[in-house]
Formats: sequence, C-alpha cells, structure tokens
Amino acid sequence: MTLERDFHMLGGTGESSYAANSTLQKKIASGAMFLVEEAVELLVSAIPSSKTSLVLADLGCATGANTFVMLSAVMEVISTTCTKLGQPIPEIQLLLNDLPGNDFNALLGPVLSSYKLKINKSMSESGIPFYTAAAPGSFYERLFLKRSVHFIYSSSCLHWLSQVPLGLNSTTEGPINKGSFWISKKSPPNVSKMYLEQFQRDFSSFLKFRYEELHYEGHMVLIIPGRLSADPSTEESAVWISWYEEGLQDLVSEGIVKASDVDSFNIPLYFPSMAEVKSIINMEGSFEVIKEDVYEILYSDGLDAIPADTDKIWEKIINISRAVLEPLLIFHFGNSIIEPLFSSTLPKIYAKKFFKEKYKSANLAISLKKK
Amino acid sequence: MTLERDFHMLGGTGESSYAANSTLQKKIASGAMFLVEEAVELLVSAIPSSKTSLVLADLGCATGANTFVMLSAVMEVISTTCTKLGQPIPEIQLLLNDLPGNDFNALLGPVLSSYKLKINKSMSESGIPFYTAAAPGSFYERLFLKRSVHFIYSSSCLHWLSQVPLGLNSTTEGPINKGSFWISKKSPPNVSKMYLEQFQRDFSSFLKFRYEELHYEGHMVLIIPGRLSADPSTEESAVWISWYEEGLQDLVSEGIVKASDVDSFNIPLYFPSMAEVKSIINMEGSFEVIKEDVYEILYSDGLDAIPADTDKIWEKIINISRAVLEPLLIFHFGNSIIEPLFSSTLPKIYAKKFFKEKYKSANLAISLKKK
Repeated sequence: MTLERDFHMLGGTGESSYAANSTLQKKIASGAMFLVEEAVELLVSAIPSSKTSLVLADLGCATGANTFVMLSAVMEVISTTCTKLGQPIPEIQLLLNDLPGNDFNALLGPVLSSYKLKINKSMSESGIPFYTAAAPGSFYERLFLKRSVHFIYSSSCLHWLSQVPLGLNSTTEGPINKGSFWISKKSPPNVSKMYLEQFQRDFSSFLKFRYEELHYEGHMVLIIPGRLSADPSTEESAVWISWYEEGLQDLVSEGIVKASDVDSFNIPLYFPSMAEVKSIINMEGSFEVIKEDVYEILYSDGLDAIPADTDKIWEKIINISRAVLEPLLIFHFGNSIIEPLFSSTLPKIYAKKFFKEKYKSANLAISLKKK
Repeated sequence: MTLERDFHMLGGTGESSYAANSTLQKKIASGAMFLVEEAVELLVSAIPSSKTSLVLADLGCATGANTFVMLSAVMEVISTTCTKLGQPIPEIQLLLNDLPGNDFNALLGPVLSSYKLKINKSMSESGIPFYTAAAPGSFYERLFLKRSVHFIYSSSCLHWLSQVPLGLNSTTEGPINKGSFWISKKSPPNVSKMYLEQFQRDFSSFLKFRYEELHYEGHMVLIIPGRLSADPSTEESAVWISWYEEGLQDLVSEGIVKASDVDSFNIPLYFPSMAEVKSIINMEGSFEVIKEDVYEILYSDGLDAIPADTDKIWEKIINISRAVLEPLLIFHFGNSIIEPLFSSTLPKIYAKKFFKEKYKSANLAISLKKK
C-alpha cells in the first residue's frame, strides 16, 4: 500500500463518512485553542505592520469542517491583535493540505460553500478577506514554497505514520506481529521499538520540512493524539483498535479471513508520549518549544448530540472507528470483510462498555517557533 | 442557476468526460505557446535574481491534463532563462483554479499523480521543484492574495460568462431569445448586444482582479476562443451550438420538452473578436498589450488519434460538445433529455458534415503586462 496515494479518511457526507464523524476531533482541537490564539498573537505582533497578507496552513485537514472552526478563531485573533496594535488587517491565504486521496471535491465544494454562505462571500466572520487553496501531498515531504507560510496548524494527524514500520513483515522471518495489527499487550517488544523508530523518522522529517516552509517569524501549533503512560501498548488512546483485532480473529475462526492475512496486517499509527515528542524536537533542532499542554478528552464528548442509551450511540462509536479504519482494511483484505466486521456484535458490546467506562483520549498540544 | 456553484465541465475520466475530450483545447493552447514562452522569459529577466520562488496560476484548469503540458513548457523556459542569466533556479508554486464544482479529486489525485510518475516525484521535467495547490472559485472574483502571483495563464475559459446576460428573460416581456439558446441568426438584435455587454462587464472584472493579484512584474497570457468576423452570430466558433438548438426543437415536436423551457434557456457563452477584447483592455486601463495573435485551429485537429470515416468520429465530436453542454442542459431541463438529445440522429448528421467541411475555431491569444 502506498499511503500517500491510497490512504484517506472515508469521504463523502454519509453516516460512516469522516465528515459526519469528526466531532471528537473538533473537541480535541478546541482543547488547544488557547495555544493557537497565543501563537497567532505572537506572530502578528512580530510581523512588520507593512505586511499585507498572511499565509496559514492546516495540515491533514480531511474534509475540513473542523478547519473552518479553527480558521474563524484565528481570524478573530488576527483582527483583534491588529486593532490593538493599530496595524492594518492583512488578507489571508488558507492552504488546506491532505493526502491526494482525500475528498477534495467535498472540501472545496459543499464544505467551503456552506462556510461561505454563513458569512459574507469572501470575508471571514471577522471581516478579513480570505482565499482558500487545497495542497495535496504527504506532510512528510515538502508541500509549500520556502519561507512562504506564517502559521502552520495540524490537529489529530501526526499519529499517522508515513508507512507501516519497516521490518514488521520481515522477508526472512515472516510477519513479526502475529495475531495483532498494532502494538498490543501480546506483541513482541521489538514491535513497539519499530513503531517508535518509525515515528521518530517521520516526525523529524515533518519538522525539517516545516522549518524550510515557515517564514522567519513563523509559528506552528501541533495537536497529536498521544498517551500519558510510558508504555506504548497502553489502551488509553487506541482501545478501539483491540476490538477489531478480536473481531478479525472471529472472522478467521469463521473462515472468512485467512490467519496469514491478519498476521501481515499492521496499521501505521503511533500515539507518542510528550517526552518522546519533545526529545525528537530537541534532537532535530530547528524549533523551540513555546508552550505545551497535555489534556484528556472523554470519547463520549464527541457524541453529545446523541441521546444516551440508544442504539445510535454504539452505531456512532463504531462509525467513528470505521471512518478511520475502513480504507486501510479494504486495501489489505478487500471489500468483503467490511460488512461482517463492522456489523458483528463484538464491536457493539465493546462500544457499549467503552461508553460506560468513560474512556479518554490523551492529547499532546505543543506550540513551536522557528529557532 | 448559480454558475459559480453549479457549473463545471463533465467530470471523471469516462468517454463523455471533459478529461477525455480536451485534445482540441490542447491544440489551441500549443498555438499560443510562443506567447507564453516569451512572457515567461520577460518575467524571469525582470525579477531580481535573489527571488527564490515564482507563483504561476492556471485559471479555469478543469481536470488539468492540459495544465501539465503547459507547466512543463513554462518550467523549461524558466530553467533556460535562469541558466542564461546566471541566476539560481527558483521553486515554483502552481495554483490551479476552477469553479467549486470542478472535479478536484481527479485533478489532485490521478491526474497530478500520473504527471508526477512520469517525472521525479516533486520535480518538473526541467528539475525545478514545484508544489501544486487547487484554488476553487470564479475568476470573476478575487482568488489570490494581493501581488502574490507572477504569471497568470488562462486558456479556452474566458468565453464563459459569469451568468446568462441580464434581461434575456425579462420579467415583463418574458423570454426575448425565443427558440434559440444563444446568439443565432434568428435572434433579435438586442440579444447580441446583451451578450456583448455581459462579456464587457465580466472581462473588465477579470482584468481588475488579476491586476490586484499580480506581482509588480507580473505577466498574463490569455487564450480566448473568439471569432474573426464582426458579426457575433457567425457560426465559426460555435457551429455545434446550432445542432442542439435544432435537436431541442425536435424534442419539442415530439412532446419530450416544453417549448417555453427552450425559450427561457440561454447559455452563458460569448466568442469575442480581438477588436472587442482590446477595446475592453484599453477601457479598463490596468494592462498593456505586449503581443497578440489570432489563429485558427481545425476542429478535426482535435480528433487526430481517431481513424477517419468511422462512427467513432461522430461520437467523438458529439462527446466534445456534450462534455461542455451536458451540465447546463441538466440544470435547466433535468436528466431525462440527455439521452434523447445526444443519441438523436441530428447531431450525428451535422457532426459528419462538420468534419467534412473542415470547420475551424478562431482563437485570440494576448500577452499582457501590468501597467
């Protein structure tokens, strides 16, 4: 699988689409809004008042519904800060990035239009003119011109690795992570080491390329789904992954899926600790940490629009994980496993338990400035 | 119909898609390549050698297959000119614009990928690093930041008006252009006046907004499908429109379409003469004409990959007009007329005649510099 070419959140606007299942990501983003506001204020104060335009980039924007929530807040801060400093208000170029397989038709069509309908046609809520463009590509490569971007933001994306860690499917020894498709309690210890090393390589590239693209006074706020515990196999941020590991084993018992296919399946996700993230930032050396925060969000907070204790809740929780996992599963196993896996009773039971036990996702927010 | 929201060339990559029916547009673009090359050479020579990046924009790129042909030529000129002047080669940001209903998934996914596969991943054929972004919106409004673009290019797009000319469906007198849906020989004289006035308003806005977006040394090359004759009802550039006017009348006789629906249908297309284009440029006042050219392209040149005198030719000619007209027809008449209209024998007879009589499209190419 070429992640850059084939990977994407589930497109469209249907019940299983990412667009309809990203309330949690919105809650996560709002948890770090104070970091964003502070970074934008610092940026605007440092930029010469003769500057007539600012370029903002959202990396891994998916279908973008959450992007425009963030955008409105950023525009508000720009407008307030400029007024306070007696500076003219700049125009904004918003660059929305995601992988080439992302649903850009939805993003640049209905999603952008409905945001513009809410406000004046080409003005933000704060009256700032803004122009939108979508930049396809992996953020583990260069995306923009040198020193052309003033503020980079990425929320709930950097836990996606550029590829399944090298060596998990060794050509000599065969699959190493048998029966699991991520770092589970039963995975051999070198599995979590391979995942961490892949994260280190990827996150270092990310920092290096963003350094090249950021303006001298550029700021960056990253929100990374992570973990509090030192143990990478902790369930805190990825409990839902284990349901499908069990679900897949059931499909193996029923003869629907081959055991060897499960053995060679691994998902390119890593939930780092703040210590791991900061150690990579220090080692890479391009950025200075301005502020950091670790905060937890109740998974059930992503579901607040739905009345408790109805079937809708379990459906919703399953749809959230489905929006993320389905494209990866289809690529490895084919279309035919999707219905049996997601309609089996197992995820339903777990999702119920999950909701009752008030599981939380841990989020690492970090505000960075070019050194 | 809101053109900005609803209008687009036929998407996808099927037999009737625009992507599969834009060979003619490619021929038209190559006819003006010498103007593009000269403008880019002038631009590169005028930009300070310390400039490390250039921004190019293609307005009305559709699915973009032709864009990358032009891009390669432009990169080649940039590379040669920089080498000749002993300047470092800049990075390129390519901004691809079209209306929000355009098939951006095809453009940013398979179309861009297949171009990148042909060459080094993020390098052009001339070895220049380039980054692509898609900017949705009408080019009769602002699209980019002030003075942020160095070279603007638009081919086979500016004959599309921002709307059906005001007054064609008068609220007091009813439809003015009865039985026709464009400027035909039988249209009353004020119809062509209304079309020209709409073109004047639209093209003036286009120039005004592009002036704001272009860098001080910015250049622009426009290729506009137009006409040689002073008479706007001449068939030279739009002979194919009349087939469907007759075809629709047949559907009226058969009771498939209501006559009143045909009376109120008008298409937002105008094919200007070079004298009209230059008069608007002078009146608007922001640009100086560097070079101009009028050239004709045989319609049959867009079909050279198909053996003559087979059914494929008539199909191909019909598909070309279908890629353009179908979205407009569906919006006004609904889906049900598409099959009867495009599969009727009338267009087939005309398409055959059209090919035999060697009809040509007249193209106006004009190279402009900010005053």
